Amino acid sequence: MSQNIYDDANFFAGYATLDRSVKGLDGAPEWPTIQQMLPALAGLRVVDLGCGYGWFCRWARDQGAAQISGLDLSNRMLERARKMTEGDGIDYHREDLQTLSLAANSCDLVYSSLTLHYLVDIAPLLATVYQALTAGGTLVFSAEHPIYTAPLHQGWRVDENGQKSWPVSHYQQEGERISNWFADGVKKQHRTLGSWINALVAAGFVIENLNEWGPTAEQIAANPALDEEKERPMIFILRARKPA
Amino acid sequence: MSQNIYDDANFFAGYATLDRSVKGLDGAPEWPTIQQMLPALAGLRVVDLGCGYGWFCRWARDQGAAQISGLDLSNRMLERARKMTEGDGIDYHREDLQTLSLAANSCDLVYSSLTLHYLVDIAPLLATVYQALTAGGTLVFSAEHPIYTAPLHQGWRVDENGQKSWPVSHYQQEGERISNWFADGVKKQHRTLGSWINALVAAGFVIENLNEWGPTAEQIAANPALDEEKERPMIFILRARKPA
Repeated sequence: MSQNIYDDANFFAGYATLDRSVKGLDGAPEWPTIQQMLPALAGLRVVDLGCGYGWFCRWARDQGAAQISGLDLSNRMLERARKMTEGDGIDYHREDLQTLSLAANSCDLVYSSLTLHYLVDIAPLLATVYQALTAGGTLVFSAEHPIYTAPLHQGWRVDENGQKSWPVSHYQQEGERISNWFADGVKKQHRTLGSWINALVAAGFVIENLNEWGPTAEQIAANPALDEEKERPMIFILRARKPA
Repeated sequence: MSQNIYDDANFFAGYATLDRSVKGLDGAPEWPTIQQMLPALAGLRVVDLGCGYGWFCRWARDQGAAQISGLDLSNRMLERARKMTEGDGIDYHREDLQTLSLAANSCDLVYSSLTLHYLVDIAPLLATVYQALTAGGTLVFSAEHPIYTAPLHQGWRVDENGQKSWPVSHYQQEGERISNWFADGVKKQHRTLGSWINALVAAGFVIENLNEWGPTAEQIAANPALDEEKERPMIFILRARKPA
């Protein structure tokens, strides 16, 4: 089974303090960009891979999505999601994305936020998503950017003038990266952007948009802690389409 | 007119000493990867954007390409190319890629090696290439990778254990980067991978393959100077197709 760090009590407690946990979608600075990359949701059947607290599922419901499934490996997350969205008619399931199966032609939009970099092997999931989407359907997902994940020890460097930079090394060495993020030994997978894109193409997807997210000047003015995020992308957002 | 550093006498003299200048395609470590990304050339009409000494044009001729045009802004390069490939029936033209026009449906493969990062605006050239390609035609090009070009002052950092890393900063700040490479003030353009890919998609291309080039273990064993290239990609190679 895939690593399930979100059911670790300490991790879960730490994660719960993040802006994106407390404030939901508006607490995630990349959300305005993701929103621009999404299709109109009214009438769509939507699947959220790694739904967490269910913030996106609730938003999709507000946008008039016809059917919404939120999938997550973490029982704690699902419990919280069910409590928060009670009566919203959203369907939550516990699923391991590494071994997921979905009915063919059963959805129009597959969404995933900062989840797929936990998967050791991305190809089986992409094949599952592809056959589950209707022709013309859309996949939009974010993941940690390989510039961010490449180094074995990730962190900023600050030079004598105060300029921050992100030392990149081991870029070509794909695979496990261990970080200590609310808990020790959180395992994520580093893969190059080329590997992400080529895996999507191999699964049959057409690449529509790649955004290597960085903050706008307005976002930095409103939240100066975001300033460093302009130096290197921490996440990317990708939109791909199943050909009609 | 675009910057024409290759007609600078000092730059040209320095450039002439590079392995890829002396040995041709086999002097470029990314060439085996590019070769795998190229279609079979027999019978194809080929255009090389930034042909330099004409090494690729000659190789295309050896592969049985039906028609070959080598375009470059540098008179020195073209003079050398014409001398080296005399009688090969290759058509060399002086062209500024920033204002290039090509006849519609006039070629099957457009190739470019380490040239397009000199262009301030990539969109007009991509539109030109798109209409020049026949349906199903291919664009294969390499350019400096944005991880490499992002910092205002590019260079390795070596930590106390001898680990090399490439400090990335200013990634989101697209535009001019000045480097001193055989001549002072060589101007290149930094653009994110997202911008490259989205410009191709906007021009109508379908992304087929992205390779963020790094050396193989065999290449490093044969040429230990390549070892550092595994830490971060210096170039990327992209293959895109005009839909049939």
